[in-house]
Amino acid sequence: MADKRWYKRGWSFRPADHAPHGWGRLGAFVDGVYAIAATLLVIELRPPEHAAPGELGHELAQLAPQYWAYAIGFLQMIVGWLQTRRLDAWMRGVDHYATLLVLLSIGIYALTPFSTTVLAQALGDNDDLGTAVRLTSGLLFVALVVFALLLHYSRSVGLLRDDVDPDARTLYFRSAMVVPVVPVLTFALSFDFPWVGLVLLVLLNVLGLLPLESHRPPDGVDRGPRPASRRHRPARR
Amino acid sequence: MADKRWYKRGWSFRPADHAPHGWGRLGAFVDGVYAIAATLLVIELRPPEHAAPGELGHELAQLAPQYWAYAIGFLQMIVGWLQTRRLDAWMRGVDHYATLLVLLSIGIYALTPFSTTVLAQALGDNDDLGTAVRLTSGLLFVALVVFALLLHYSRSVGLLRDDVDPDARTLYFRSAMVVPVVPVLTFALSFDFPWVGLVLLVLLNVLGLLPLESHRPPDGVDRGPRPASRRHRPARR
Amino acid sequence: MADKRWYKRGWSFRPADHAPHGWGRLGAFVDGVYAIAATLLVIELRPPEHAAPGELGHELAQLAPQYWAYAIGFLQMIVGWLQTRRLDAWMRGVDHYATLLVLLSIGIYALTPFSTTVLAQALGDNDDLGTAVRLTSGLLFVALVVFALLLHYSRSVGLLRDDVDPDARTLYFRSAMVVPVVPVLTFALSFDFPWVGLVLLVLLNVLGLLPLESHRPPDGVDRGPRPASRRHRPARR
Amino acid sequence: MADKRWYKRGWSFRPADHAPHGWGRLGAFVDGVYAIAATLLVIELRPPEHAAPGELGHELAQLAPQYWAYAIGFLQMIVGWLQTRRLDAWMRGVDHYATLLVLLSIGIYALTPFSTTVLAQALGDNDDLGTAVRLTSGLLFVALVVFALLLHYSRSVGLLRDDVDPDARTLYFRSAMVVPVVPVLTFALSFDFPWVGLVLLVLLNVLGLLPLESHRPPDGVDRGPRPASRRHRPARR
Repeated sequence: MADKRWYKRGWSFRPADHAPHGWGRLGAFVDGVYAIAATLLVIELRPPEHAAPGELGHELAQLAPQYWAYAIGFLQMIVGWLQTRRLDAWMRGVDHYATLLVLLSIGIYALTPFSTTVLAQALGDNDDLGTAVRLTSGLLFVALVVFALLLHYSRSVGLLRDDVDPDARTLYFRSAMVVPVVPVLTFALSFDFPWVGLVLLVLLNVLGLLPLESHRPPDGVDRGPRPASRRHRPARR
Repeated sequence: MADKRWYKRGWSFRPADHAPHGWGRLGAFVDGVYAIAATLLVIELRPPEHAAPGELGHELAQLAPQYWAYAIGFLQMIVGWLQTRRLDAWMRGVDHYATLLVLLSIGIYALTPFSTTVLAQALGDNDDLGTAVRLTSGLLFVALVVFALLLHYSRSVGLLRDDVDPDARTLYFRSAMVVPVVPVLTFALSFDFPWVGLVLLVLLNVLGLLPLESHRPPDGVDRGPRPASRRHRPARR
Repeated sequence: MADKRWYKRGWSFRPADHAPHGWGRLGAFVDGVYAIAATLLVIELRPPEHAAPGELGHELAQLAPQYWAYAIGFLQMIVGWLQTRRLDAWMRGVDHYATLLVLLSIGIYALTPFSTTVLAQALGDNDDLGTAVRLTSGLLFVALVVFALLLHYSRSVGLLRDDVDPDARTLYFRSAMVVPVVPVLTFALSFDFPWVGLVLLVLLNVLGLLPLESHRPPDGVDRGPRPASRRHRPARR
Repeated sequence: MADKRWYKRGWSFRPADHAPHGWGRLGAFVDGVYAIAATLLVIELRPPEHAAPGELGHELAQLAPQYWAYAIGFLQMIVGWLQTRRLDAWMRGVDHYATLLVLLSIGIYALTPFSTTVLAQALGDNDDLGTAVRLTSGLLFVALVVFALLLHYSRSVGLLRDDVDPDARTLYFRSAMVVPVVPVLTFALSFDFPWVGLVLLVLLNVLGLLPLESHRPPDGVDRGPRPASRRHRPARR
């Protein structure tokens, strides 16, 4: 190997040759992108600039589609962020390829303010709503596939921690294989039943709020005792 | 339990089954959202784009309502952030439900640039000001209720640290139960006395600046000695 | 004291009763605001939306004032951030009032995208430039006074570390007392010599780039040896 | 030295007199700027505001240039961020001048949302594309030169860690000397073959995705064993 030219040495595509990083900087970057994309959603909530005096309340009431879109968009960002925190807690660290997969997934998630604006505009028309559901479904499908790849890659190269609860891990890995079906389904439904597609997408996000925290994270903390006042007043139960 | 199907195992709704996380990633996400929402306020401060040459000073003076709205909005963001730092210092960590409550509260707080823009537009008209006060009151009410829930949930599941000063804790918990009354009051007042409502809302935020730091946080530091120059010049006191 | 009502206990205005926090969360919040305000400057750099095909280069050349304003604004943000990192390295931690002073100073600094936009608009007209210099001077004056207050407060309540180089500390503290004179001067100059005022403001920022790093910060690191290739070629010096 | 005036003491331009900082705060600031600039790209993706009902899908399809520009801009931000994380892992810390070089490089990178918007506008016209390629080439050239300076400065003042793989370091340092040639080339090509220039710029960024992770970072982690299911099925290889 010593006789290779300098530009042929010093790098390798084999994961086993790469030293993993801790999540540190990657977590900060990911948190930044999620926080910004979630907060940018509010930029779309704009009061009409030329409302007649005294008409502000009336005008604000007209923005109902934007409020719904904000709620849906924020839910999606929160659910996405919860998954990255879970991964952070379940993984020993990230190597080069895991980093690239994480960055690719946030490149998709960072488009949420765009798809949310499209959704807000589309809520008044059935055809347009179909378009918006297809856009959101497409983005979500790619994000979910990248995420499933990341999970399986992490396991196959030894980046998963040993002390993750096996039941929780099995549940999470199998779910990650199944859920990409949902955006495919909503894509298909969007042509005839866009509202059904939208509701399914929201339900999928709500599913992402479910607790899977049976693993003690590395910076894990112990609970203290419950407050005495509660323990000594069993009559309240 | 071993004979349950995989999708029935691996998760549980009971908090006692969830391992708490440290605040780490959640704190970074929350800091990001607060920092962004606070900084986005400045986007609303826009100099008129087509001012005649030499008229810039005159035009900027017209923006007075925006400056006030910026100050009020920034105050609100700072006060909200101070509470999350206090919680971080007082809590052992966060579990799944505490995380969801924190995320819900910042979903409300992230709307501050919107309510601030509405307020800036409304400052010139009494009816519109009432609308803006109602909007801000409504959002603040939800945020304060979520925050009170978070406090009581944290205590009941053993996430509060033992070494928090009991007086400070009692004061904070009782205040958290009382203050949601203020936005209810300002909502009611907004119909006839919008300015009184606005002043009360600002005062409530000022109240949030009060010090409650009698607890040594986990990353606590000790003060050094006061500088010699001061100690040796008692005559100045 | 035990017979005081609950709302009279649990808080105190005396700094000595407050446990200092580490810079942790405050540093993250401050970094966030500086990073966002610095990056928002680029939003003002907008290519003309309806340029005729082939005319883009010509149109971009017209944006020269915006480029200068971006450079000045970014310089100001970097210099401000450098001071907060220096403080972080020099201080044991922050207490309640130090936190409030830091938050107030970033509330002023977060207005930089606004003052930068005003400056970009004003660069073509002498009167408007005077207005822009007065706006920037006013904001900078408040920020510098708050910063000097923060320095002296930190020293007086024992938040400064003992191992800061005494010469560097003396230099920094005395400079902090002197520099607020500069924006007062540029304010006065802006009426007749706005360009002189602008140049002085930029020079003041350049001054903030000077190194004062003779103190080993708490997360200090040691330098390694210089590379052998340099040590063995003294002839190059 | 003791008889020097106070304003002549306390600072020094010689790097050897400066105590290096850890990357901590600088890393957070840099992550913030990269995260924001990457996420701001999505602001340029705006659905047409006055699309006729039912025409949303048609209108979105027209935005193809913006989608490409977003992908290119995001790629550039990710590649830039990967280099700062590598530096963080390879360096002992940063001193004053290394900090200034990092801040200068992110001041250039923060302009990516601007150059991306220009690119999106230019994709329809050959002359305009040449302008956009020249703008991007110019910015990238400055950023790459600053980065090469930073690398060599870090080595010469002993800020590089000893345990970086020598082959990886040699490869990286030599590449850093060579790659600034690429934007010079694309600048020249942009006059006659703008598309070739654009493709070369994208390829340069793709090159930045290559793994060079053969060094164990300070917060390094070990890989766990590969999952048993894989090890017991060698037939799959």
